[in-house]
Amino acid sequence: MAVRAAVAGASGYAGGELLRLLLGHPGVEIGALTGNSNAGQPLGSLQPHLGPLADRVLEPTTDDVLAGHDVVFLALPHGQSAAVAERLGDDVLVIDMGADFRLKDGADWEAFYGSTHAGTWPYGLPELPGARAALEGSRRVAVPGCYPTAVSLALFPAYAAGLVEPEAVITAATGTSGAGKAVKPHLLGSEVMGSMSPYGVGGGHRHTPEMIQNLSAAAGERVGVSFTPTLAPMSRGILATCSAKARPDVTAAEVRGAYEKAFADEPFVTLLPEGQWPATASVYGSNAVHVQVVLDGSARRVIAISAIDNLTKGTAGGAVQSMNIALGLPEETGLPATGVAP
Amino acid sequence: MAVRAAVAGASGYAGGELLRLLLGHPGVEIGALTGNSNAGQPLGSLQPHLGPLADRVLEPTTDDVLAGHDVVFLALPHGQSAAVAERLGDDVLVIDMGADFRLKDGADWEAFYGSTHAGTWPYGLPELPGARAALEGSRRVAVPGCYPTAVSLALFPAYAAGLVEPEAVITAATGTSGAGKAVKPHLLGSEVMGSMSPYGVGGGHRHTPEMIQNLSAAAGERVGVSFTPTLAPMSRGILATCSAKARPDVTAAEVRGAYEKAFADEPFVTLLPEGQWPATASVYGSNAVHVQVVLDGSARRVIAISAIDNLTKGTAGGAVQSMNIALGLPEETGLPATGVAP
Amino acid sequence: MAVRAAVAGASGYAGGELLRLLLGHPGVEIGALTGNSNAGQPLGSLQPHLGPLADRVLEPTTDDVLAGHDVVFLALPHGQSAAVAERLGDDVLVIDMGADFRLKDGADWEAFYGSTHAGTWPYGLPELPGARAALEGSRRVAVPGCYPTAVSLALFPAYAAGLVEPEAVITAATGTSGAGKAVKPHLLGSEVMGSMSPYGVGGGHRHTPEMIQNLSAAAGERVGVSFTPTLAPMSRGILATCSAKARPDVTAAEVRGAYEKAFADEPFVTLLPEGQWPATASVYGSNAVHVQVVLDGSARRVIAISAIDNLTKGTAGGAVQSMNIALGLPEETGLPATGVAP
Amino acid sequence: MAVRAAVAGASGYAGGELLRLLLGHPGVEIGALTGNSNAGQPLGSLQPHLGPLADRVLEPTTDDVLAGHDVVFLALPHGQSAAVAERLGDDVLVIDMGADFRLKDGADWEAFYGSTHAGTWPYGLPELPGARAALEGSRRVAVPGCYPTAVSLALFPAYAAGLVEPEAVITAATGTSGAGKAVKPHLLGSEVMGSMSPYGVGGGHRHTPEMIQNLSAAAGERVGVSFTPTLAPMSRGILATCSAKARPDVTAAEVRGAYEKAFADEPFVTLLPEGQWPATASVYGSNAVHVQVVLDGSARRVIAISAIDNLTKGTAGGAVQSMNIALGLPEETGLPATGVAP
Repeated sequence: MAVRAAVAGASGYAGGELLRLLLGHPGVEIGALTGNSNAGQPLGSLQPHLGPLADRVLEPTTDDVLAGHDVVFLALPHGQSAAVAERLGDDVLVIDMGADFRLKDGADWEAFYGSTHAGTWPYGLPELPGARAALEGSRRVAVPGCYPTAVSLALFPAYAAGLVEPEAVITAATGTSGAGKAVKPHLLGSEVMGSMSPYGVGGGHRHTPEMIQNLSAAAGERVGVSFTPTLAPMSRGILATCSAKARPDVTAAEVRGAYEKAFADEPFVTLLPEGQWPATASVYGSNAVHVQVVLDGSARRVIAISAIDNLTKGTAGGAVQSMNIALGLPEETGLPATGVAP
Repeated sequence: MAVRAAVAGASGYAGGELLRLLLGHPGVEIGALTGNSNAGQPLGSLQPHLGPLADRVLEPTTDDVLAGHDVVFLALPHGQSAAVAERLGDDVLVIDMGADFRLKDGADWEAFYGSTHAGTWPYGLPELPGARAALEGSRRVAVPGCYPTAVSLALFPAYAAGLVEPEAVITAATGTSGAGKAVKPHLLGSEVMGSMSPYGVGGGHRHTPEMIQNLSAAAGERVGVSFTPTLAPMSRGILATCSAKARPDVTAAEVRGAYEKAFADEPFVTLLPEGQWPATASVYGSNAVHVQVVLDGSARRVIAISAIDNLTKGTAGGAVQSMNIALGLPEETGLPATGVAP
Repeated sequence: MAVRAAVAGASGYAGGELLRLLLGHPGVEIGALTGNSNAGQPLGSLQPHLGPLADRVLEPTTDDVLAGHDVVFLALPHGQSAAVAERLGDDVLVIDMGADFRLKDGADWEAFYGSTHAGTWPYGLPELPGARAALEGSRRVAVPGCYPTAVSLALFPAYAAGLVEPEAVITAATGTSGAGKAVKPHLLGSEVMGSMSPYGVGGGHRHTPEMIQNLSAAAGERVGVSFTPTLAPMSRGILATCSAKARPDVTAAEVRGAYEKAFADEPFVTLLPEGQWPATASVYGSNAVHVQVVLDGSARRVIAISAIDNLTKGTAGGAVQSMNIALGLPEETGLPATGVAP
Repeated sequence: MAVRAAVAGASGYAGGELLRLLLGHPGVEIGALTGNSNAGQPLGSLQPHLGPLADRVLEPTTDDVLAGHDVVFLALPHGQSAAVAERLGDDVLVIDMGADFRLKDGADWEAFYGSTHAGTWPYGLPELPGARAALEGSRRVAVPGCYPTAVSLALFPAYAAGLVEPEAVITAATGTSGAGKAVKPHLLGSEVMGSMSPYGVGGGHRHTPEMIQNLSAAAGERVGVSFTPTLAPMSRGILATCSAKARPDVTAAEVRGAYEKAFADEPFVTLLPEGQWPATASVYGSNAVHVQVVLDGSARRVIAISAIDNLTKGTAGGAVQSMNIALGLPEETGLPATGVAP
């Protein structure tokens, strides 16, 4: 029997992608759809790609509207989830696609988000060591940030196997949907097409402490991260280029072996054949993660590169995957494993 | 019980899209995959987005390889299908994604394709009057061209209702995947990004007689077509802008009414609410067709615009939809109705 | 000796393109730069591509600021030019890049722009019959709209030579910069990349009466226009696909001949060799216009296609070209004739 | 009086960009244009954006054709320049846009290019310490690679000032024109649009030893480089994200100061105001270089980011700039300092 799911924040990109996935999920019935500034509007005028839901009307995000669901997805601006979540019963599965419950260290939260830390929920990146167990049966899930998803999957095997030094250098390119639907001049099509540009350079991006948290947990020691995000002229996708100094005597075979082992049983992560590199187009619209890794013998660095769709595996797909685990459904249910290419 | 399907021409864009859809089709088991110049290669090196099939190896397109399937899809260059098809038994469902069996008039075929006409098969555009009935139980299907799909769906209601003069003017923009995977200088990314350009101007495009055939059938008289295709800087999608002179006294309400009636029961075609226009992004990766129509009172022309994904509804999705009808499966099986957007 | 030029509205796309051209114009000294909501900001923060002007600070658009210049360019929202212009002396060359003074028919103005008609100035499309003479020595210039520039140049030779019927059907694709720098949701990069969509369908686009005006003047009778603009996933460029029914007995040679004659002495318009079609990339960033024309013998329509850069020839380049003529400078001064490609 | 320049390899992207610049160079008369496989074709069919040269016919690359010029630009595949150059007289200025004469270390050449080292010419990156002096009056110039141009300009000030450790980590995104005009499947528009992908990962890219050479010269010690290039969905532009561990006690003010000093008198390099980051769109089609640098206090790394147009400053613009210096012309002659944006 299908669970009934509400989506708070159905008019944005994360909410739209979630609905696209839920429409194809055999175990979910789509309940209330909310959106504060757009309440009263039909979804078809805001998300014209979601044809089967075109006539559904957005409701305000109130307790009454969200009541009576088995699962509530929160696709709200950072800082708004805690208040909504605490009024939902403990037996409702609440899946927060915002940042509020990702960080364990309240000081990090306050430094990067500037408000009081709401707490920490089980972390919805099942591929990390121990994460799947914490999600099983949980009624609260913090969906990871899109960059931390791409970066953690690219680097945790190297850290878990003790192959690299605890200083990672990461550059990632993201599609513009990662910046959301808010209209800002630098996100105009005229500005982004034909252009690459960085932002949040020098340690300021809010996803940095989340990466540090994940990699440090894998390494068993604090891992420093230098993270530079860049905006690419595409709607979707993250390509994360990650590297760290190899520890002395580490060999290419050890590196490959660690990654093969880490992903051997993962349904959505593929370590590509040697010589084949990830491309974001190959995972477009899918929950798949493509990873490749190599040891640069001259620079003595391990270079690990991952490609994800920021809206699917990086947000809404990760949310559905975690929901499946929490509810005891087969983990792959409703999640496309193939990209829409070319 | 699943039918077993072979795909001849699995390394190209049409074949790749077909496999993406078949992977999500609960009633199909994917059998042999062939590709002549790429025979022997793993599919993962050619179609990296099709993760679940990455280890499948392409076979040559021979009778032996294609034997033993319930359905054979032909995604071959124009002119190659007839020879393959005639050696497949009459009880095998053969679905030709090439042009060979689309045209009824052998003279048209010879004029536009320069070879001997192979014949005519039931036409895989179920939304056209009478088409669905011809497909039911058929063991041969000619999948329409991508442009004729977009154009015929935009204009046939106006012709079927007798609202417009028999001279249509059509401009369509297509994504580059419509040109296939063959490497030609003008299809390089450096050339197409940031550029719009026409081709096949002046009546020479091979899809023109197919449009004339479809619109004439709807009109009950010969409809002339002036068709100008343009190449747009995007991978997928067709936006067809079609118009014809309104007959005297035709009203906007009559026009709207004719389209509402034509698409009322169609699972994949949506006549958008008044004032909302199609965008190819909204149907990206889906079998959906978005249509809008208006009467320009000043110029006295009916303007009908449709958006499709050229690889999905325009090729592989149309093929699967026709397969479903031919086999008696629910028509929407395995076909996404939602676009991947943004 | 250089003329001193002010630019009112220097923070937008039209103003920025104008400044790019004026920086390379040997006969112009750049004076005041104004922008109301951005007054006080350095240009470098708004137009980072204009390095040599990075430290120039925007001033408010006041009479005092605009005083003391030989030329004043107005890149203001529609309806604001008249008030500014009337306070500038008659000996100042005022070049309006807005719509205010383009239309001769006040009723058209009121119907499409909803305000009182301000008047009509010499029309800055020198290639039209008689236009160059009207610009020589003029102290007022109305720069044409971008679409009317592309469309009029594509079709006026056919009308001037009496080769086609007075009903034109036009579809044009534009880059997103044509919509300006205002932040609107449908102009976000996430929305426009990978998508083609129409707008202003059915006769409502404000450039329609301007096209009718130009083509009717060339034809010597009223020409009806059905115009459908579409938004393409690129920053710049217009590809205008224009057609009209050929008059009986008109031949392909007559059509070609009319275009050869019309553009024989034009410095910026190239009738491409037969068989070669325009591409917007070829005129990117340049004042060049590429045109091709063909007679579709089957549909009996003349198809004329033009490519321009909407910001250069379509706006700022057209403005500089007209300035050159008005001031008696060589017409090509400061205007790139080569596109930036690929 | 103008110098007469020949271009060997006029049909490719580098040759085309060079011709675009030379057309605007007041001190250059364009002489012979050669292209082996395209000899006999008019340039207009190959480079339609170069309108003024449309009727020029490509000649074969022979000694006779190249004779009688003051300057010969070689835009040939790697390994072909030496043979051509040695037959040109010592008083002809030969500017090699290929790699043949860039590297000082023959072993590096052989390891990365697999052939015999041809020698070393003065290096055409005038902004590097000592480079300008070596170019003055020289009759041989080796134009740098596009990536080394972007990377060296981003990092040499930090190395020259002794602020960072000798291990640099670099990720760069390039437009597809960097891969040239050769038709390869992965460069098709359908493949690159909407996709980011790496290549040459792990130390294998041929530009790596050139970066090491430049940075080591600035540092006065060997600098190791880990370089990862990525292909971005745009035609032009390089965004280079470069970092290196700051030496102990280095402050943000020292870093900023070193860059201000390095670029104070450079006509084409702009250190952007603090807080403003480079975007490739801002330098599109121009010889400008935009640089920003910051000290990440937490990760203790200096992050320096540069944006160039790979075809202009990265290839043809660098060539013209070096030509100007070698010939004693003002360095900025014929070189646009403003980008074509948006």
